[in-house]
Amino acid sequence: MIFWFEYGSTYTYLTVARIDALAASADVVVDWRPFLLGPLLKDRGMAQGPFLGNPPKLDYMWRDLSRRAQAYGLPYRKPSVYPPNTLLTARIGTLAAMQGWCDAFTREVFRLHWTEDIAIGTDDNLRRALTTLGRNPEEVMVAAQSDANKQLLRAATDAAEAMGLFGSPSFTIGDELFWGDDRLEDALAFAQSPGRPAAGQA
Amino acid sequence: MIFWFEYGSTYTYLTVARIDALAASADVVVDWRPFLLGPLLKDRGMAQGPFLGNPPKLDYMWRDLSRRAQAYGLPYRKPSVYPPNTLLTARIGTLAAMQGWCDAFTREVFRLHWTEDIAIGTDDNLRRALTTLGRNPEEVMVAAQSDANKQLLRAATDAAEAMGLFGSPSFTIGDELFWGDDRLEDALAFAQSPGRPAAGQA
Repeated sequence: MIFWFEYGSTYTYLTVARIDALAASADVVVDWRPFLLGPLLKDRGMAQGPFLGNPPKLDYMWRDLSRRAQAYGLPYRKPSVYPPNTLLTARIGTLAAMQGWCDAFTREVFRLHWTEDIAIGTDDNLRRALTTLGRNPEEVMVAAQSDANKQLLRAATDAAEAMGLFGSPSFTIGDELFWGDDRLEDALAFAQSPGRPAAGQA
Repeated sequence: MIFWFEYGSTYTYLTVARIDALAASADVVVDWRPFLLGPLLKDRGMAQGPFLGNPPKLDYMWRDLSRRAQAYGLPYRKPSVYPPNTLLTARIGTLAAMQGWCDAFTREVFRLHWTEDIAIGTDDNLRRALTTLGRNPEEVMVAAQSDANKQLLRAATDAAEAMGLFGSPSFTIGDELFWGDDRLEDALAFAQSPGRPAAGQA
């Protein structure tokens, strides 16, 4: 199952915190796939996501998110930065996915943002996360800014757009799309079902 | 608990079909409250809801809705009319709520739309639903178009806007808002919880 996500998406925090245990229980392999939601929305004529520009919906999102975190037993502290600037984080996540440490990196980046208010996209957030993972921040940042890696993130964003994604988190198993943390369990159940595409097709 | 809804909302079908049994199990009294989502969105500078103008999200909505209906064991047939014109239906629903038969009327209106493709808002849909309920369609339509009843629907829409609603279905218990069929169970659990406002405040 491919887990497509944008680092600036608030509900994605719930999924990042939940997906490992649920996927392990379901015996489903998760392919972490960062992409950029902004350019994808802009290509479709939308200047922004569903919350900015709709204050009541934005207010509700924060309320709902804190309730969901509480229901799932997850730590939650409303971040002071919204929306964060996620370009560099997404580039590092893309490099990490290629090298096999995207899950650990992403969990730590979100943990810092959502429990210590060390905002995603800031130098502090990235350096702390990378250091915690035993990685050299300078080396990683240089590699993440290489043309090849930038192109890789662009390719993931293009693929997300081509597959009809419109938000984060999204989950795909072959052509089947599930959107939202609320559908994580359904996506995993579908990935387990007998009629699912073989791993090579997903 | 107040159940606020727009007759043209697709996900509201799931709630209309599910809420009676769930509310009875939870021992929660439901106050059915039709409102018009269009004017509320327009007041906030939005020309339409989240699906029209975003074709991938619209496609996903239909897919997700059919999967949810299947998961809940509800009959589902994709309606040929979308979005329906819901003004007269909402006016009749408002009259029905005042007279205590909004739940039965709304269930039948949605059933015709979602299982027989007799579109909400059409004369056929309204006449059949009213006749099934043993009501005289002509008499009901005249009463629903009275100035007093029109004003009642406007008042419900204004109240929805003032409470920060932005979609359908929505559920409120005092000031606490839950949005979406996915939150129906949470709303009912909250309505049951010891710290909830007394019925008179909700």
